[in-house]
Amino acid sequence: MKTAYLNGTIVTIDDHNTVIHHGVLVVEDGKIIHVGSVEDFDQQSAEHTVDLKGKWVLPGLVNTHSHILMTILRGIGDDMQLKPWLETRIWPMEQQYTTETAKWSTALGLVEMLKSGTTTFSDMFNPIGIDADEVARVIGEAGIRSIFSQTLFSFGTEEEQKENVRKAREFAKTWRNEFDGRMTTMAAPHSPYTCSPDMLQEAAKLAADYQIPVHIHLSETAQEVQKNVDDYGKRPVAHLESLGIFNQPTIIAHGVHLTQEERETLAKYNVAVAHNPISNLKLGSGIADVTAMLTNGIMVGIATDSVASNNNFDMFQELRIAALLQKGAKEDSTKMPAETVLRLATKDGAQAIRLPEVGSLEVGKQADFITIDPTNQPHLQPKEHVVSHLVYAASGSDVCDVYVKGKALVQNGECTTLDEERILFEADRVYRNLKK
Amino acid sequence: MKTAYLNGTIVTIDDHNTVIHHGVLVVEDGKIIHVGSVEDFDQQSAEHTVDLKGKWVLPGLVNTHSHILMTILRGIGDDMQLKPWLETRIWPMEQQYTTETAKWSTALGLVEMLKSGTTTFSDMFNPIGIDADEVARVIGEAGIRSIFSQTLFSFGTEEEQKENVRKAREFAKTWRNEFDGRMTTMAAPHSPYTCSPDMLQEAAKLAADYQIPVHIHLSETAQEVQKNVDDYGKRPVAHLESLGIFNQPTIIAHGVHLTQEERETLAKYNVAVAHNPISNLKLGSGIADVTAMLTNGIMVGIATDSVASNNNFDMFQELRIAALLQKGAKEDSTKMPAETVLRLATKDGAQAIRLPEVGSLEVGKQADFITIDPTNQPHLQPKEHVVSHLVYAASGSDVCDVYVKGKALVQNGECTTLDEERILFEADRVYRNLKK
Repeated sequence: MKTAYLNGTIVTIDDHNTVIHHGVLVVEDGKIIHVGSVEDFDQQSAEHTVDLKGKWVLPGLVNTHSHILMTILRGIGDDMQLKPWLETRIWPMEQQYTTETAKWSTALGLVEMLKSGTTTFSDMFNPIGIDADEVARVIGEAGIRSIFSQTLFSFGTEEEQKENVRKAREFAKTWRNEFDGRMTTMAAPHSPYTCSPDMLQEAAKLAADYQIPVHIHLSETAQEVQKNVDDYGKRPVAHLESLGIFNQPTIIAHGVHLTQEERETLAKYNVAVAHNPISNLKLGSGIADVTAMLTNGIMVGIATDSVASNNNFDMFQELRIAALLQKGAKEDSTKMPAETVLRLATKDGAQAIRLPEVGSLEVGKQADFITIDPTNQPHLQPKEHVVSHLVYAASGSDVCDVYVKGKALVQNGECTTLDEERILFEADRVYRNLKK
Repeated sequence: MKTAYLNGTIVTIDDHNTVIHHGVLVVEDGKIIHVGSVEDFDQQSAEHTVDLKGKWVLPGLVNTHSHILMTILRGIGDDMQLKPWLETRIWPMEQQYTTETAKWSTALGLVEMLKSGTTTFSDMFNPIGIDADEVARVIGEAGIRSIFSQTLFSFGTEEEQKENVRKAREFAKTWRNEFDGRMTTMAAPHSPYTCSPDMLQEAAKLAADYQIPVHIHLSETAQEVQKNVDDYGKRPVAHLESLGIFNQPTIIAHGVHLTQEERETLAKYNVAVAHNPISNLKLGSGIADVTAMLTNGIMVGIATDSVASNNNFDMFQELRIAALLQKGAKEDSTKMPAETVLRLATKDGAQAIRLPEVGSLEVGKQADFITIDPTNQPHLQPKEHVVSHLVYAASGSDVCDVYVKGKALVQNGECTTLDEERILFEADRVYRNLKK
């Protein structure tokens, strides 16, 4: 069916950052087949029309790095050093996870992501103690677009590590192209400080065998960089380069502590960066030099990390902080303008996670888009500065409707595919079942 | 009338950061007369009861530095250097202001502030071309608590400057204690780079004559500090000290560029700081060292500045960024914990602007409080981490009810004293009347 969404202000994120007032977006079979002005459009050509009544329309936001299984761990430890936080709060909780815990925690995260305008997320999950296939089904059935990737690490006995790799391969085989293409996966070695060189190379082999990218945490903290130098005589980027990891399409999460030489290496191999500004601040990791990354031609996307270190999935707040931090840290208000950061959170983020079919409202792209109604929102007045307000004033709570592949997953702020009330109840129950 | 608000989770911000689950807050004649547990409370003693059904209750947020008249200037210029931004965007707009422009722009700001949980704000306005008394009435009649202060500066002819001072004195005389104590004023010399030493001393005299504090912009940018050194041979803090300004109770906005010696001077004179983290980032001013200020015993409040450099009045986002920035800039996640920043945005902020009667939920304090209902909010789950979620996950859009002096100004997210629809319409109209 051909559906025309009429009378919206369309923020296309095309190559000219075109914003169309009184615009029309036409969707057929989950794809965008026309974007233009209402005046030039023959409404008779659409089988179905939706009047957007001046709503703002933009590509769904792309969260390039998350850990959605951890959603119920929101707020269990704040303002702590990373090591005691992980060892005394996060890991003891994660070790108690069952498949049921993981499913409801994930469902809670999906409600939050969708309602705040995220249509695509790329996630790393810890497979221990859970049936990941069941969790993947929860995600897929919600209608969201996802890259759901099983973490690899060198913990446990040799046998346990082999089992970890075997499961990851099985997972990749099963989920690399499911739910009508809405779910894919990556090879996800956790990091060079939790994976031996052998394990990193196993991950690269997995990626090559299944033609999937690599997703890895890298250079998040100064300590971790130093440990890599101590252990391997090299900084993390050189370490991964020497192991051949970057011969696969790769996205690294964080990249807070990079030298200019390292940025040049990342650019050379077309390695993308998932920038997690709030998590990097909250955990005291530092402020990534995204301005320099972009100058070096590195693909950058915006990401929330887990809500245990954020503490929400609101990509509007995330992209705003990404813009503000570059200006503040460099004491230059012209850095990271609104158009640039909105592009990072949509089109560029999609390219960073190798999903070029989403992230902008252009003919041929997947119909993943969201709407915001500024009408009764005092903080979105005067209404004419659409891009400015999206970046500097809006929040996830302003999101009205969310479409993925042309299907409405949120309408007027309510989820259509997820039972919100039940999910909040069950998430609370499984959280209470964890020993604190 | 004695009203008991029952079954809330009360975040008191008392000296022990007490949080009372199943709490009760009793209000009489606009003041808090009891705070405690529902179990220990005789409901018969209240004439009227309100069941909060598990809502979170906290002191109304205190915005220690704003420019509410500029609200319709949101988004008219972003990502620009300060000088061209002011000279080509902001000032040409402000110069066209009439009293009507100022009134509707202010009303828009009031809607936004109230709905996002701000119950007190301390504001500096530019008096040129407007009848400030009319604007003051708009603020007072909205029911919010305010400190509304006319800016002084050394622009124009000698006669114009004298007129400016005369108007400021008249304004202070009229508004230093109005609307049942809800509105007061301060002497507000704009800054040392826009006020001559004579004008600064005029302001100090005004403050002394009317027993009101001084509110001034100080050390916001590195350039401004350098200019002060060039012009007067002293950094701004020493300059104001030598002019005797600090002999009046004083609050400075910004304080981004301070030396340790300057912090010690501020502490010595009990000069408070209004910390505007988002504006300081957005304008490329830098990151204020609030951690060091607190170590030095300086009173600090949180503030938004105008929405032209923010771009909203959401104090929840502001306080979150304040906490995150200290951790990130210092690469230490233990800096500025949740309890500390929540206190800055409430009780400490109130003390900074010399309104110790608000900012916490304690017996004898003014009944300025707000509620948040976490029930259906995915980003506020699991519900038990109240303070963590208030700081790291909540937004102004989560605010349910807002009370000032015991009167409900917002109920279930709707303003009770302001006609929101009319205000948004009129604000749009006066904005459109400005030449761009």
